Amino acid sequence: MNGRLSKVRHKLIHSRFNAALISSVPNITYLTNFSSFSKEEREAYIFIAKDKQYILTDGRYSQAVKTLISDFELIEISTKFSFEKALKRISKKHKIKKLGIEEDNLTVKEHRMISKHCNDLYHYTADHLRIIKDKKEIETIERACSLGDKTFNYILGKIKEGIAEKELACEIELFIKKHRADVSFPPIVAFGKNSAFPHHKTSYQRLKTKDIILIDFGVKIDSYCSDMTRTVFFGSPNAEYKKMYQTVLDAQQKAINVLANKDTPLRRSILAKKVDKVARDYIISKNYKTIPHSVGHGIGLEVHEAPRLSPNSKDILKPGMVFTIEPGIYLPGFGGVRIEDVVVLEEPCPRFLTRSSRELIKL
Amino acid sequence: MNGRLSKVRHKLIHSRFNAALISSVPNITYLTNFSSFSKEEREAYIFIAKDKQYILTDGRYSQAVKTLISDFELIEISTKFSFEKALKRISKKHKIKKLGIEEDNLTVKEHRMISKHCNDLYHYTADHLRIIKDKKEIETIERACSLGDKTFNYILGKIKEGIAEKELACEIELFIKKHRADVSFPPIVAFGKNSAFPHHKTSYQRLKTKDIILIDFGVKIDSYCSDMTRTVFFGSPNAEYKKMYQTVLDAQQKAINVLANKDTPLRRSILAKKVDKVARDYIISKNYKTIPHSVGHGIGLEVHEAPRLSPNSKDILKPGMVFTIEPGIYLPGFGGVRIEDVVVLEEPCPRFLTRSSRELIKL
Repeated sequence: MNGRLSKVRHKLIHSRFNAALISSVPNITYLTNFSSFSKEEREAYIFIAKDKQYILTDGRYSQAVKTLISDFELIEISTKFSFEKALKRISKKHKIKKLGIEEDNLTVKEHRMISKHCNDLYHYTADHLRIIKDKKEIETIERACSLGDKTFNYILGKIKEGIAEKELACEIELFIKKHRADVSFPPIVAFGKNSAFPHHKTSYQRLKTKDIILIDFGVKIDSYCSDMTRTVFFGSPNAEYKKMYQTVLDAQQKAINVLANKDTPLRRSILAKKVDKVARDYIISKNYKTIPHSVGHGIGLEVHEAPRLSPNSKDILKPGMVFTIEPGIYLPGFGGVRIEDVVVLEEPCPRFLTRSSRELIKL
Repeated sequence: MNGRLSKVRHKLIHSRFNAALISSVPNITYLTNFSSFSKEEREAYIFIAKDKQYILTDGRYSQAVKTLISDFELIEISTKFSFEKALKRISKKHKIKKLGIEEDNLTVKEHRMISKHCNDLYHYTADHLRIIKDKKEIETIERACSLGDKTFNYILGKIKEGIAEKELACEIELFIKKHRADVSFPPIVAFGKNSAFPHHKTSYQRLKTKDIILIDFGVKIDSYCSDMTRTVFFGSPNAEYKKMYQTVLDAQQKAINVLANKDTPLRRSILAKKVDKVARDYIISKNYKTIPHSVGHGIGLEVHEAPRLSPNSKDILKPGMVFTIEPGIYLPGFGGVRIEDVVVLEEPCPRFLTRSSRELIKL
């Protein structure tokens, strides 16, 4: 049995419930190593009892599941044999009284149906297992980041006056796919004033001289994600842009220094919100508005996962965690700057997994 | 105010609840015409009271929302001003007693939080509004289908011995993106035995002579989706393949005949499950296993939406509905055939929106 599954099993034995129903796709992928299920629709569940585990999916996937997933018994769901019927049968067989469910993933409708067959439902998630990455996971994320760096370097050569945001985004996707990888989300490319929208929807806007270019994209390799943002200037940047850029860069560096400072008593228990605060306060101290998003987020099977580096976060950063540091400044009507890197927290210092230069680039 | 919003408002006035919280992205898009929110994470809600409506989102989107969405007042959610606080304020202001929520979208965790501020929660969805498409929606889906046909025709010219499934999928994406559209889901390309997996995960498998080639892809234009599948043979097909192909084609035609038959008493109330049954039974009558998926699904802002053409469906097909018809046969270790088209139900006959030839193709 795989080590991840053993950990879930171990937790079950020592918890108040005697089985767990896992419904979120990243957790299913984490526990089964099978990554074909869509996140947009419910296509599978896994059910872990104390002495056995099942994967419940429909006929579209059953062949693939049989071939690729070990450790789990397949239960094929169909119109005739619904998920509800399957759940009822398993619950009865294993005498399930208390069932752990993912309350942040299961819908109200699903919950109502499950409640009919099991009264005692508790929140359970495998998310906490994923927060510390093992060596192989870090290596995989590093490969994704490294292809991200290559992609950024390649894409700089494709930037020319008149190119559309969408065309540049398409070049990014194509380069990544030619390298046998996938994008971890649709690339964000924002020219000029569009860069003032932190999550701009890439458009057919064409590049003009003196435009800011903000590029935010990620690579996915073997289900693991990278994420990086660089902002470059097309032409000679004015003083306003230079000041914004330097402020964001300094804010990022200050956040990283919090992670690197060996002498602070925080070293072994760095509060994620402290890292957020340092970057956020620095930007405010330079008379800019506060960052309209968190300063960072964990990354792995999901682009955004624990830990969260935000003002209200309760997460404590520990070695083996992989996350982004991405302060930004956005001036409506002018433009924005964001610099985003992925780091892994190691002893004694954090290590960058994205390695593209962070210095101001003018094209 | 837009007509869609009026319909929701009208329903509220005549229902047992006096406000609705909409959380599903397609419904938010339908009511606001804003399509930047991610489906993978909760980034926005809309709240519709009897005399006013709000959009609740965070700082990443607030600039874009202000610029692009009318009719809705923006409430910016942040770490300091959480969704919970915002909801509490609106509920108090509008004296909300009974709130409609999307039970098939909202998570158990969200539901628990909302329950703290509003005891009376009922299921509400705008899905039913989307099931009948208006003229503009049909035209948009038709444009997506038409680009799908063009893409299929183009891609036939790219098929050659040794090409990898992923390479062909990449060519599909690139062609679509060059035509200022997007894919509605990652294209499925399956060679040889892989075509026996109805939802095969496109791999680096390379094409060999005598391979079946199954291609399932969709185009997205202005947020509306198309979806089509064609199965072609690389080389001279054997008798087994020819029989499978003809059976699937006949099954599809029989399903379509149910929709077209003016004389049947079913004409004005065609049960979706009847269409499924006709195709399914025909395939079984030819000694193949039953289709391991439904025979069709509605399509629009989502690739899969109501109506469902499946054995247990309670949907009744009516003019203005747009859906797929996609029977298939899958023989493990040999391969599969699926033929999928999009039709709109019109008087007196259904009309194909996908128009690529359905005849057997050998390359």
